[in-house]
Amino acid sequence: MEAVIAREAPTARVVHVSHLIGRHDVWAGAMTLWRAAPWLVPGVILAVVDPGVGTERGAVALEVAGAGAVLIGPDNGLLLPAAARLGPITAAVELPTDPSVPGATFAGRDVFAPAAARAANGVALEALGTPVDPTTLIGRPVPEPVVEEDGRLRSEILWVDHFGNAQLNVDVPRLQGVLGVASAAAVVAAIGERRLHLRIVASYGAIADGEVALVVDSYGLLALSCNRSSAAGRLAVGPGEPVWLCAEPGPVTVP
Amino acid sequence: MEAVIAREAPTARVVHVSHLIGRHDVWAGAMTLWRAAPWLVPGVILAVVDPGVGTERGAVALEVAGAGAVLIGPDNGLLLPAAARLGPITAAVELPTDPSVPGATFAGRDVFAPAAARAANGVALEALGTPVDPTTLIGRPVPEPVVEEDGRLRSEILWVDHFGNAQLNVDVPRLQGVLGVASAAAVVAAIGERRLHLRIVASYGAIADGEVALVVDSYGLLALSCNRSSAAGRLAVGPGEPVWLCAEPGPVTVP
Amino acid sequence: MEAVIAREAPTARVVHVSHLIGRHDVWAGAMTLWRAAPWLVPGVILAVVDPGVGTERGAVALEVAGAGAVLIGPDNGLLLPAAARLGPITAAVELPTDPSVPGATFAGRDVFAPAAARAANGVALEALGTPVDPTTLIGRPVPEPVVEEDGRLRSEILWVDHFGNAQLNVDVPRLQGVLGVASAAAVVAAIGERRLHLRIVASYGAIADGEVALVVDSYGLLALSCNRSSAAGRLAVGPGEPVWLCAEPGPVTVP
Repeated sequence: MEAVIAREAPTARVVHVSHLIGRHDVWAGAMTLWRAAPWLVPGVILAVVDPGVGTERGAVALEVAGAGAVLIGPDNGLLLPAAARLGPITAAVELPTDPSVPGATFAGRDVFAPAAARAANGVALEALGTPVDPTTLIGRPVPEPVVEEDGRLRSEILWVDHFGNAQLNVDVPRLQGVLGVASAAAVVAAIGERRLHLRIVASYGAIADGEVALVVDSYGLLALSCNRSSAAGRLAVGPGEPVWLCAEPGPVTVP
Repeated sequence: MEAVIAREAPTARVVHVSHLIGRHDVWAGAMTLWRAAPWLVPGVILAVVDPGVGTERGAVALEVAGAGAVLIGPDNGLLLPAAARLGPITAAVELPTDPSVPGATFAGRDVFAPAAARAANGVALEALGTPVDPTTLIGRPVPEPVVEEDGRLRSEILWVDHFGNAQLNVDVPRLQGVLGVASAAAVVAAIGERRLHLRIVASYGAIADGEVALVVDSYGLLALSCNRSSAAGRLAVGPGEPVWLCAEPGPVTVP
Repeated sequence: MEAVIAREAPTARVVHVSHLIGRHDVWAGAMTLWRAAPWLVPGVILAVVDPGVGTERGAVALEVAGAGAVLIGPDNGLLLPAAARLGPITAAVELPTDPSVPGATFAGRDVFAPAAARAANGVALEALGTPVDPTTLIGRPVPEPVVEEDGRLRSEILWVDHFGNAQLNVDVPRLQGVLGVASAAAVVAAIGERRLHLRIVASYGAIADGEVALVVDSYGLLALSCNRSSAAGRLAVGPGEPVWLCAEPGPVTVP
């Protein structure tokens, strides 16, 4: 893929974000792009994670004009969180496949890389393919936390990293604004049947043995974490699990 | 190695093809280069896979003038399949080792990278080393399928990927031309004592549970494949195994 | 990190030395940089290995003016061996952290990469941070071998690679100069209670089955090695272990 880009767009600089996404793990790829996206623009973002063998899926290019960004990849949800983080999608096209390539198409090399090279060369999005309605794209952006009627903040676990930290879709300013909780304070979290008293700390080293805490990560987001063990394993939670946060004190049990 | 190239050839662009070849697996490296080669030229291709500890082997540079290609690496068979795919080898030289380097030479850094940088800078092949007869180089190109006297096509398993797909040295046009089999049809394959009725399909998803089929891969070649399981494991075959293909119907048993 | 550098220093060429250092293995990172450093200068060397979760450590930039080198990374010993190999440290500064970044700082992206980009752009070291005394930096350079009063050379195992080769801090000229041992000769080594008769060989293949020998590696250094097995495992030694070398014959036992 990079050789195709180098040939078609000799002056384009290629930066590799990650080659460590698990096979078929589209959501992990989406979260990786979502975290890196602000540092990759203005520019062209090209990503490929296949959802499984033999699966049909379109090839798309999205434009977020406000960020100077074009995102290219499969229409399987991989690109939407990163695009949404950069701003509203201003245009989208479906990329044509090249009928001159023999056999099944290797989309990364034969479709995505040539399109990325053309975009890097300044070719307009509409010249790359057939317009599609951005609202029909498969996938979802990163869910936003919601303030419930009872004043609690409904958040969600976005993903679990390989240390077992469970990243929430809430940053510190959002938490402070909604709950009136000052930095480095604590909250009560409801996860399933459990209620947890969680301190907000700046590093894993500040978590006591046996404690679950909320750590502020390098993206400003909060994560359920333990020190040198897996918070997700201990709480038996995974991506998509809702977590309600509130500031009021209440009965606390550590599971 | 890349730092040496960057210093000696500051304007040369370096693209990494793979760092995932198994230790000492020269043939896997050769097949990886062979598949990628058409997308890497015109240009200089540098590759290193050591055949084993403490083994003597020369360092060579090959030229395929018709493709604008120079291939640099050990004379252990790593380069020949890719070179042959690009065209006839028009010249070859043995690279000198640098006596100023202390201890055993780290050929990648001390021999291959400087030669690749010089080639990228436009230095002629004959200025890189001592001429050698290309026909004396160690290794073999990818074997060509052969039409037998009885009309069958004798093919060979080139390699087995980590999914267990067994790639043959036959593409669809070759199969069609020799056997008169239309695209998406089926053939009878003889592997050892077995005869298999194999459909030709475009994706793994089109293979039924328990079926072995021929899938057209992203290089236009046919591979013996199962859906979500290892065809090579099931058939107990590996690289070098001959596979005879014919169009006539006959008694079929699936092992 | 590379995207940050690409944005801030568009013409700087980035070469990746290794992404395979074990988590928190600062010394392995230091040894990797130490071996690669001569091929990376003149230039800016950026490295990050965290010593452990939640640990405080400063961010520094060092200058070795004689080599045209700036080294940037954590003040945890990662940079000192490479710097010392390049020459005397002529200046050092502590890098400021960026208070605009939310949450805990991702030093690689937010501190080191911007500083490396500025250094690559020619910004003077003193403009990157606050001067610090180089002698106060954490860590140690690679230890030098010492000639003892009895004439023996006291060396040390620097590291053990994943084959089990135990690299010493002695090169062949040093050994020859001190001990009067000609190339390809043998020495007697004392490791703990053991005395070993070790031949000096040019490749692993020259080591007999069951033999421990000294191999000259691609950096010109000697390593305790076996052929296709782990010398470190057999001798039960690791980094930091002293090894006394002498030329005199004496009683020899192979453990």
